[in-house]
Amino acid sequence: MPQDAPSPTPVDVLIVNGIVLTMDPDLQQYEPGAVAVRGDRIVAVGPQADLQARYQAAEVVDATGKVVMPGLINAHTHVPMTLLRGLADDLRLDVWLLGYMMPVEREFVSPEFVYLGTALAAAELIRSGVTTFVDMYYFEDEVARAAADAGLRAVAAQTILKFPAPDAKSYEEALEYAEAFIRRWKDHPLIIPAVAPHAPYTTTDEILRASAQLAARYDVPLHIHLSETAQEVENMRQAHNMPVIPYVKKQGLFEAKVIAAHCVHIDEGEMHTLKHHGAGVAHNPSSNLKLASGIAPVARMLQVGLHVGIGTDGPASNNDLDMFEEVRLTALLAKGATGDPTVVPATTALLMATRMGAQAIHAAHLVGSLEPGKRADIILVDITPLHNAPRFRRDPHGVYAQLVYAAKSTDVTDVMVNGRWLMRDRRLLTVQEDDLLAQAADLARRIDAFLIQREKSVLSKLIAIEQATEEESYEVQVKVPIAAEQVEDFVRRLHTHPEVDILYSRHYREYDTYFFFADDGDALRYREDEFIGPDGQVERVRYRLTLIGPSHEHAFERAVLLSRSRYLAQATHSLRFYREYFKPSRELEIVKDRRRWKIRYQDTEFFVNLDRIERPTLGTFVEIKSRTWSLRDAERKAHMITALLHDLGLDPAQAVRVEYPNMAT
Amino acid sequence: MPQDAPSPTPVDVLIVNGIVLTMDPDLQQYEPGAVAVRGDRIVAVGPQADLQARYQAAEVVDATGKVVMPGLINAHTHVPMTLLRGLADDLRLDVWLLGYMMPVEREFVSPEFVYLGTALAAAELIRSGVTTFVDMYYFEDEVARAAADAGLRAVAAQTILKFPAPDAKSYEEALEYAEAFIRRWKDHPLIIPAVAPHAPYTTTDEILRASAQLAARYDVPLHIHLSETAQEVENMRQAHNMPVIPYVKKQGLFEAKVIAAHCVHIDEGEMHTLKHHGAGVAHNPSSNLKLASGIAPVARMLQVGLHVGIGTDGPASNNDLDMFEEVRLTALLAKGATGDPTVVPATTALLMATRMGAQAIHAAHLVGSLEPGKRADIILVDITPLHNAPRFRRDPHGVYAQLVYAAKSTDVTDVMVNGRWLMRDRRLLTVQEDDLLAQAADLARRIDAFLIQREKSVLSKLIAIEQATEEESYEVQVKVPIAAEQVEDFVRRLHTHPEVDILYSRHYREYDTYFFFADDGDALRYREDEFIGPDGQVERVRYRLTLIGPSHEHAFERAVLLSRSRYLAQATHSLRFYREYFKPSRELEIVKDRRRWKIRYQDTEFFVNLDRIERPTLGTFVEIKSRTWSLRDAERKAHMITALLHDLGLDPAQAVRVEYPNMAT
Repeated sequence: MPQDAPSPTPVDVLIVNGIVLTMDPDLQQYEPGAVAVRGDRIVAVGPQADLQARYQAAEVVDATGKVVMPGLINAHTHVPMTLLRGLADDLRLDVWLLGYMMPVEREFVSPEFVYLGTALAAAELIRSGVTTFVDMYYFEDEVARAAADAGLRAVAAQTILKFPAPDAKSYEEALEYAEAFIRRWKDHPLIIPAVAPHAPYTTTDEILRASAQLAARYDVPLHIHLSETAQEVENMRQAHNMPVIPYVKKQGLFEAKVIAAHCVHIDEGEMHTLKHHGAGVAHNPSSNLKLASGIAPVARMLQVGLHVGIGTDGPASNNDLDMFEEVRLTALLAKGATGDPTVVPATTALLMATRMGAQAIHAAHLVGSLEPGKRADIILVDITPLHNAPRFRRDPHGVYAQLVYAAKSTDVTDVMVNGRWLMRDRRLLTVQEDDLLAQAADLARRIDAFLIQREKSVLSKLIAIEQATEEESYEVQVKVPIAAEQVEDFVRRLHTHPEVDILYSRHYREYDTYFFFADDGDALRYREDEFIGPDGQVERVRYRLTLIGPSHEHAFERAVLLSRSRYLAQATHSLRFYREYFKPSRELEIVKDRRRWKIRYQDTEFFVNLDRIERPTLGTFVEIKSRTWSLRDAERKAHMITALLHDLGLDPAQAVRVEYPNMAT
Repeated sequence: MPQDAPSPTPVDVLIVNGIVLTMDPDLQQYEPGAVAVRGDRIVAVGPQADLQARYQAAEVVDATGKVVMPGLINAHTHVPMTLLRGLADDLRLDVWLLGYMMPVEREFVSPEFVYLGTALAAAELIRSGVTTFVDMYYFEDEVARAAADAGLRAVAAQTILKFPAPDAKSYEEALEYAEAFIRRWKDHPLIIPAVAPHAPYTTTDEILRASAQLAARYDVPLHIHLSETAQEVENMRQAHNMPVIPYVKKQGLFEAKVIAAHCVHIDEGEMHTLKHHGAGVAHNPSSNLKLASGIAPVARMLQVGLHVGIGTDGPASNNDLDMFEEVRLTALLAKGATGDPTVVPATTALLMATRMGAQAIHAAHLVGSLEPGKRADIILVDITPLHNAPRFRRDPHGVYAQLVYAAKSTDVTDVMVNGRWLMRDRRLLTVQEDDLLAQAADLARRIDAFLIQREKSVLSKLIAIEQATEEESYEVQVKVPIAAEQVEDFVRRLHTHPEVDILYSRHYREYDTYFFFADDGDALRYREDEFIGPDGQVERVRYRLTLIGPSHEHAFERAVLLSRSRYLAQATHSLRFYREYFKPSRELEIVKDRRRWKIRYQDTEFFVNLDRIERPTLGTFVEIKSRTWSLRDAERKAHMITALLHDLGLDPAQAVRVEYPNMAT
């Protein structure tokens, strides 16, 4: 055998006839090009004739008409949320998250849920050319297991929250889970375990510090949401007099290899901080637009030299895992936001989803480009379909523009991860779609039933978001109109009557908004109580929600007994939140000035209110009321109220039985 | 036969088992629902059992797992530009349009080009569920013919420009073409002919008026680009002291049924004007982002009550005709731009692409919803694929969110226009894709060759965009350094020498930017000449481009003869434009103060420059030069220059032979 014709080296797979885009630092392209794979690695990339001469492959794959390129990297998502895709859309973040996502997650998220959702997501990711994804969710063990079973590469980050989560009653438990999880998966060929303190506003300083130390100790990434909304930054400034990035730096976050999702609202100083500490950023354009969080300053980040990857975020806020859409939107949005159509050109956008994405998630030593020695994570994209034609060759960067601006995820035909084929000719090899879809449909039916049941009743919607307590269910009350010139005399009598002890007095301005519902007798009252001090200034404000059931009236003399259910909850959200969440069919606003006395009259306690109803202008009323669980006690109090009215100089015959909302309508 | 069981009415097609979304004013849905079609019309829409009892169909189509809905309306595009898709991307509008699109269009656009591009676009439109499109291009007859051949519905608008266009040497010719075109197609069942004065800045008052009158006379729509960029509005304000909408109103534009593309930069008053006159708007989110034109205030337009449709714009600035992408982006972008995630919810976005889109293009009497009597323009969308799963049914609007946020154009399986199937089970029935793709590939090769040839030479790139004239090709010149203290004496001698007549003098500040090219000896100089008046103020500025070929030097005594080619052009664009268009490999900036005299010396004319080179600081020079076509004349002038130097008190021995750019590097 002549010396100058060495026999070809055996390899497992040789992909030939393709347009090979290496995405390496020189952006080398080969057409026709070839890629040789042995085991889990890329052995060689180059001109086809060259590789065909040097290698003998067990399997030769023809990539005619196709781009051969590194698999895409989805730098931020919550894959199990495929199961909640389309559950609730076009809502504000708080209504969406607190009203729908979290209640449903509390009820349904289990290890089985997470495995199923991840398996479903794996199928979608593979179909759209993603070979590596970065996840943050609960029961992350199951995410890792499902990803590994599907053959996908993942940075799987276990969530740590300051609240109880579906997989941990406390944050200490979550940290323990995270450590055990990291130890279990640390040496897996496909899984990079990680820890995910959810966000600064959902964790504590202690959690941030402990998470960073855990990540540093095991040399694994730390994944976190940072500066997603302007509100988050504003709250941080108010609480700590600094924006988000310096704050988390102070907690030692950057001792770990950070993957920071969002960074929509960061300034240039913060960009330099992130760069200095080698943190990567995951940009999520669809999610940031859909939840109206804003537009991240990606062009500036790239100028500063930050490694910015691209993510889909969870499929409940996107609503899919299509990285082709995200890459396209990244390129388009940066131009629209800066007014400069030359920023984030197609090549850069595609780099963000490949080599730079790998740098952003601290996995550039493994993936992100087609280079000898890197893992064989390779996709084939058919660029011959109609929507991709014609092809111009004048500009060698034209093929990147074709992929970014015209190609679709459905053009991906073949996917290999770690040297193993996961899809051939659009046929999935490791995931059984039909079976998963049937399971997901079954789960969706159960979630639908849960929400339909919940939404039938305003009470269960209330309980889903706030801690509500039931109040006494009988209310004895009487209302008597009082002329303005009588008020002074009434107050004097109240204070001087020998059988009346004043226990305390208050002065409020009360802003009530009543929500009424077409199919439901319930009314929900959102009340802002302004406590007025002796100097007439507002001392503090209290926000309360009261769910008022339909009333059953009984009249005892002039006092009225109302039997009804009342649930009281502290209102932790805004009126706007509740309006969008409860969707009332009608609203009514009542504004009043209330002076209230708690009194003891003949050894029984009553509330006496002097209410001047200002909006609508209904006049002034004296209201005497008491609540109880006992019907007999209610009857006794009704009689006493009549006597008290006499003693205070008011005429029980003038009592009105309707409540303010009913007077107003 | 019993009286109460009438025999079913015969129809042509009955679509059954679908999720029927009528998009009618009540947003009625039927599941399982059915649609009955006879001839070109919808006969009935409703619950399946009901329609199955009432109609007997020649063809029954099973839509299990599919949405049955009105076809999408692409409210603004330039379909033949499919042939230029991906030709040039990530460029500024002016570089893209003037540097690439228009030169290529001048060279290649013909009736055959337009027919081929439209046929190719038709295939893409049908595949992605579009049944009606609004086009604006040249040779619109061919657009209409290709659309009709493919069976698609189109509003086809013939372009009118103030410049010569590929299909008309003058605007009068274009208007004549448009009128003949309208008369030819006026009664076609699929084609609505229209006239398209391109934009206010590319037409004249007269064109706008004539176009509006033409459209009104034939009762056809008028299609136009309005307020696409902030620059357009700014220019309009400067020229006419009003924004764009009032200006075109003044020209009587709204006598016609206007379809206004873009409207990115309009204020609320302009929105009311558009609404008052019944004009429709075509929103093009991808194109507006890609060309960095901005984000149209769609949420506000909808609040005002404008009819806003959605368009892809031409596939050269998008880069496809995918309305699913545009609808999704419309919903997302409005949220991001307003900071309110509840604006333009999925239902609204889908209405914009159907019923409201039909209103925007003045075709709501024909299409846009599934209602009896409307034309049978119907699509089937498979919502069972992975990326659409699971399906929640709690919220009846959930299905719109599925279509807008998760579905892809590739989920469209069947398309009917005017009662005729154009696609069944993803198989195109009226267009031969393969044949068209081969023709497009062939054309792309020719366009590539044309551009590659052009880009080989800086001169041909220059000629492609500016009128360049060749200058005399021999330049005789000498440069002598002069000390600051000698300057006054030199100027005095020049003015007092008996053999020197001063013909005129000038004072400039000259800002020169030289572009150099790696593979080319040419240099391109962009010069800003500030004319300095006697008071030291800048009187006017002149911008010129000079292409300077490689020089061949000969020395005659001390004067140097340079033989080279020079092309001079007025610079009508900015330095930035030329930088991005010519892509120099190196740049050099020279700033100088130049006093220039044109003199007659012994009956021969010369230019004498006194140049103080300020950036870089090279000192001050006296330059004497003359240009000629004749070598012998050049030789004679070289001798005279030596004599002149003596007469002006300068030493020819100190002459330097290099030019300023060479001194600087």
